Amino acid sequence: MTTVLKLGGSIITHKDAVESVDEVRLTALANAIADTADPLVIVHGGGSFGHHHAAAHGVSSTDGTTDPAVIMAIHSAMRRLNQVVVDRLIAAGVPAVPMAPLGFAHRGPTDDLHLASDAMELALERGFTPVCFGDIIMDADRGASILSGDRLVSAVAQQIGADRVGLCGDVAGVLSAEGEVIERITSFAAVADSVGSSSVTDVTGGMAGKVRAMLALGRPVRIFGVDDLGEFLAGEAVGTLVAGPR
Amino acid sequence: MTTVLKLGGSIITHKDAVESVDEVRLTALANAIADTADPLVIVHGGGSFGHHHAAAHGVSSTDGTTDPAVIMAIHSAMRRLNQVVVDRLIAAGVPAVPMAPLGFAHRGPTDDLHLASDAMELALERGFTPVCFGDIIMDADRGASILSGDRLVSAVAQQIGADRVGLCGDVAGVLSAEGEVIERITSFAAVADSVGSSSVTDVTGGMAGKVRAMLALGRPVRIFGVDDLGEFLAGEAVGTLVAGPR
Repeated sequence: MTTVLKLGGSIITHKDAVESVDEVRLTALANAIADTADPLVIVHGGGSFGHHHAAAHGVSSTDGTTDPAVIMAIHSAMRRLNQVVVDRLIAAGVPAVPMAPLGFAHRGPTDDLHLASDAMELALERGFTPVCFGDIIMDADRGASILSGDRLVSAVAQQIGADRVGLCGDVAGVLSAEGEVIERITSFAAVADSVGSSSVTDVTGGMAGKVRAMLALGRPVRIFGVDDLGEFLAGEAVGTLVAGPR
Repeated sequence: MTTVLKLGGSIITHKDAVESVDEVRLTALANAIADTADPLVIVHGGGSFGHHHAAAHGVSSTDGTTDPAVIMAIHSAMRRLNQVVVDRLIAAGVPAVPMAPLGFAHRGPTDDLHLASDAMELALERGFTPVCFGDIIMDADRGASILSGDRLVSAVAQQIGADRVGLCGDVAGVLSAEGEVIERITSFAAVADSVGSSSVTDVTGGMAGKVRAMLALGRPVRIFGVDDLGEFLAGEAVGTLVAGPR
């Protein structure tokens, strides 16, 4: 049961302070992850690290940059966060190995995302837990552009043939207009009213974009809150199941 | 004229102090590099960053580790050095983009080195200068093992079809027994006496291993000192030319 797990940037960092890690939360998540024996790839978001720099320079998945100083500012911030995440995972007993998308992913001329996952797959096979992250990557049309954590989750899940995907965030699931967790979503139309419109330029991975992307993935995806991570990894039905037709 | 340039760890760091960058030297090298317009991939060594951690944990290209804390210690140190190198290159006007081998390179079950260079090649095509480094990488037989800067230079040069390779180090070239720079080397036997024996476990990339590896590459390689970097990049015949039969 190979799993791709996204740790939302908003749960591992304090969103309101620049480059501030939520150490208590991160340690709790790391401990929950240490309890699973299944093959696992972790993708983490940028939170108050990546988004700050991306927004300051006007860079998104559709607005690129050719300025190496901007590329480095965004990538360095994500490296700093990744360093802390991997260190805490290892301290908790997770065999975490960092892998930076800037070196193995790029966007081609038709906006296709290409991922070279050989090193990641070997790490998985050998019992390690690759930890990658939303990053800035080379883009054939734009110089460099943002690869969001959510988009990376989809690409990794597809490429390695993951059995399941989990998006762990700061909400207990996808909420209905009444504020209740929707148990299962099989089409976007059914939830469009409650999650709002989907924007392609949604750098921060808002809920509408998330649901659309996960429906398109054609694999079972659970969107759940931090308190449910242990249960998710144990195979339990937590949060919202997004299961679109393949 | 696509060039792969190695900046030896011994020239960009102070070897005798742990994790100490030679800022003056690095800035001079960065300025020399900024003057070239040719497509360029830079590979830097570990110097007092990587080697310290690798040696402390007994990890080399043939002695691996399965301890994620050791992998992270070595990789983190190299990331720290890479951060400074890329920052200084950008400050000098080089469009440097960092790419970490841990995410795009691995050793297969037969000890073959595999490199996924798509992101690197796109960066090159778009006028960026990819900057990678000797690193610890996944190894099918050993967990993880060292990919030396020299080995990475060979692999990158082969994979991207580089026209020429330069190894910039702290010696003006390969020296004869009399201490003079040998102009051209076409076989190892001819210089075995002066460069000493070649060891497979040569983590730090001593001269004998370097010459053997570069002869095997089958592309023109120049081994030269820091003062000749500008001339090398301008296409002049500096240091020692290693040119084995392809």
